[in-house]
Amino acid sequence: MSHEKRAVILLSGGLDSATILAMANAEGFACYTMAFDYGQRHRAELVAAERVSQALGAREHKVVGLNLNGIGGSALTDSSLAVPEGPTEGIPITYVPARNTTFLALALGWAEVLEASDIFIGVNAVDYSGYPDCRPEFIEAFERTANLATRAGVEGAGFKIRAPLQNLSKAEIIQAGVQLGVDYALTISCYQANSQGLACGKCDSCRLRAQGFAAAGVADPTPYA
Amino acid sequence: MSHEKRAVILLSGGLDSATILAMANAEGFACYTMAFDYGQRHRAELVAAERVSQALGAREHKVVGLNLNGIGGSALTDSSLAVPEGPTEGIPITYVPARNTTFLALALGWAEVLEASDIFIGVNAVDYSGYPDCRPEFIEAFERTANLATRAGVEGAGFKIRAPLQNLSKAEIIQAGVQLGVDYALTISCYQANSQGLACGKCDSCRLRAQGFAAAGVADPTPYA
Repeated sequence: MSHEKRAVILLSGGLDSATILAMANAEGFACYTMAFDYGQRHRAELVAAERVSQALGAREHKVVGLNLNGIGGSALTDSSLAVPEGPTEGIPITYVPARNTTFLALALGWAEVLEASDIFIGVNAVDYSGYPDCRPEFIEAFERTANLATRAGVEGAGFKIRAPLQNLSKAEIIQAGVQLGVDYALTISCYQANSQGLACGKCDSCRLRAQGFAAAGVADPTPYA
Repeated sequence: MSHEKRAVILLSGGLDSATILAMANAEGFACYTMAFDYGQRHRAELVAAERVSQALGAREHKVVGLNLNGIGGSALTDSSLAVPEGPTEGIPITYVPARNTTFLALALGWAEVLEASDIFIGVNAVDYSGYPDCRPEFIEAFERTANLATRAGVEGAGFKIRAPLQNLSKAEIIQAGVQLGVDYALTISCYQANSQGLACGKCDSCRLRAQGFAAAGVADPTPYA
């Protein structure tokens, strides 16, 4: 195994995770990107993740398939249900419960095999303060768990769980990414992008993103439908 | 949501996890069992897990599909490789790195949706002392992470990660299970069970299991080929 610095980057195809990939590049890591196919409605997300990985020169992009067979749903939901169109009440069938724990666990597995030292995740406590698994306490606890779970953690230098967006606003994230040369036109944040990957410009995620570009003083490069 | 006590039980189809399901039953939990389909060579394991779940009266059995796309392998391995027959050197393609972290993360997700309080895992520090993620320190760290990751952990009573086999020998596990009425003929431990689910009687796992029955003074009910 070489002595190069390697990192695993959790990539969703969105703006935040593209930024952390650029940040990991800037720190000199050889980057390995990981996305998850859990039956999300918009394949555009997965297409964007792969596009971002290539554009930012990641060494390898891996898509992990995760069939939760309706775990996210209620007792009344089963995996034969079609995903409803438009806004829904209750838990959507593509909901991934304990999401960051699950994604970090799978990233840890790949990091162990790659002998990577760092795992980057795009959590952000400012925008998503409602989610317990976006808080620094959670990230620290997972890091401790990761270092007790693995030979590399117990016998070697161990893993660092990196959440560089933790305390940044959307505008600050965009400014950091633009400085690092991220082309945000490649990313998708829209909850209901169309089959060409064009954003709706109306959903909460589109609004938050557009406000971020405005606040950053950066022209919004998002391809809207 | 009812006030019944619920638990999620990680079930492999083997002897250990059948025993923890019986233990959870004996504590009065409504039990929800979870198994993983990660392309393991022997489908017999998954068949056995479902059989054990039904025989021990679990409320529901869920199989999570996990396609690691060759993450477990080396850089030379890809997912198109056939699984080799017989003993192999290096990491097999069905290896799940950071295995217990990943399985517990997925169990945590289901536990959160079910409002279950306890997650049972059949790790055993006596037989498997080589694996860091079978140690009490790991289990405690994961429990802490789980309680920081979830609303139920932060706002509610939280989760307990239960590893009741932690310090038991194979013989003690078998004695405990027999007392609780576990029919070990339903379980499979063999690394190379045949298509009828019959054990080879020769591999390491078969030997360890047979020694356990002998040491427990219990007739070995394993269906051998």
